[in-house]
Amino acid sequence: MRLDDIDGFIIDLDGTVYRGGQAIEGAMEAIASLRKHGKRIIFLSNRGNISRVMCQEKLLSMGISATADEILLSSTVTAGYLKTNDPQAKVWTLGDSGLREELLSWDITLANTPEEADKLVITLHESLTYKELNQAFRAVNSGAEIIATNADKSFPGEEGESIDVAGMIGAIVALTGKEVKAVIGKPSPIMADAALRCLGVPPENCIVIGDSLLSDIAIGKRAGMRTALVLSGSTSIQDAESAKEQPDVIWESIAELVSLLELKEELV
Amino acid sequence: MRLDDIDGFIIDLDGTVYRGGQAIEGAMEAIASLRKHGKRIIFLSNRGNISRVMCQEKLLSMGISATADEILLSSTVTAGYLKTNDPQAKVWTLGDSGLREELLSWDITLANTPEEADKLVITLHESLTYKELNQAFRAVNSGAEIIATNADKSFPGEEGESIDVAGMIGAIVALTGKEVKAVIGKPSPIMADAALRCLGVPPENCIVIGDSLLSDIAIGKRAGMRTALVLSGSTSIQDAESAKEQPDVIWESIAELVSLLELKEELV
Repeated sequence: MRLDDIDGFIIDLDGTVYRGGQAIEGAMEAIASLRKHGKRIIFLSNRGNISRVMCQEKLLSMGISATADEILLSSTVTAGYLKTNDPQAKVWTLGDSGLREELLSWDITLANTPEEADKLVITLHESLTYKELNQAFRAVNSGAEIIATNADKSFPGEEGESIDVAGMIGAIVALTGKEVKAVIGKPSPIMADAALRCLGVPPENCIVIGDSLLSDIAIGKRAGMRTALVLSGSTSIQDAESAKEQPDVIWESIAELVSLLELKEELV
Repeated sequence: MRLDDIDGFIIDLDGTVYRGGQAIEGAMEAIASLRKHGKRIIFLSNRGNISRVMCQEKLLSMGISATADEILLSSTVTAGYLKTNDPQAKVWTLGDSGLREELLSWDITLANTPEEADKLVITLHESLTYKELNQAFRAVNSGAEIIATNADKSFPGEEGESIDVAGMIGAIVALTGKEVKAVIGKPSPIMADAALRCLGVPPENCIVIGDSLLSDIAIGKRAGMRTALVLSGSTSIQDAESAKEQPDVIWESIAELVSLLELKEELV
């Protein structure tokens, strides 16, 4: 693999570009370097509880500018999925407000009551209350189909590993006996298709860069793209070496891109 | 069956003695009648989020006086179970404060942090927050065993059917992949044993009176007791007639006891 042959860069956010509120050292320079070399970029994240606008602002605070079109969150792709597959659906959400902001920006109709909802979209909800969990329960009991922005179990929060969307899904599924109709986030092909469509580059000329074997490396491999695992997030070198699906390359962090882009030789 | 032969009355609370904050009509008179006839009484409830003291006060507000020894909640029986099986255990709770109150009244040690807990006890939590769910998740991730006061899916709340303990269990099990070690509430034999021990009456001379086929009628049948289903709670006559496990008798409500206790003839 030569980076010269790669035109599309699909870059994960949490653990790859930043950790919590902190940019990963050299991430800003790496993105600037990609732009200097005329590469196309998509930031592809399983975050479903923020909107693209919120994400743009966060990146900008770290010195990274990105257009809204360059950001695909699982909330964004969920909105697009609903727009394509069920444009008339009334949606109830269980999640932070960023999801609703993103759905509204795609003209998705939000249900006024749980009982009238056709779909329940579940995402991370860091200020979850019993009342909101109950409303989601009633939406499904009244016939709403369950869609999850992603199904990650936990993420590295400020006080340690924290519950991700799988917790909220587990509660609703256990109570209602209903299955989740669709999980949108990585490694789902829905996310890969969305990224490839935005990039307009064939998969063999794309690379996925991320810190998760199960979401980033898996989605890249399934879609026929190159993959680079970074060790700046949730995966250690030991985890990486014992993994069934191996990335094409392993980097300490995305910062390595700066020098690699200057090289003309084969990486692997 | 003749009520003359029945010495021990095991009486459910929600849906049998009261609904929400309201006594069921004639419940006070029925309990008074049992006392007049010298019957022994245990109030046996799957509620794990209140303490006996809270329950005593609620009954008293409805004109029903009961000693603490006559009340067995799933929180009470959970405390007794821990005291017997693991008296040294440090316990973390996910649930309303009544559970902790009940555990403390049995001298159970509460853990100071989720990480040091040996057991996580889950019960209904009507003011659940993300932070508390997260702490429970961390307790189990750090090795705590999961115990549930009960595993009911929903209960009739003030705004309609509301999430019960199964929701909180579903979240924690989905996130951690750990199974629940023990479910204490009805129809578990742990609850039946506790009730029979308190009554000091052989099972064949006891009757369970309750509104739930799955918890009240089931626990009575399994333990060799008589059973009376009341239609004042969550079970309709149609549900009752199509049930696999039939109660010995079906009453409109516990109020029927007043006249039945005066009869000397066979009930069935």
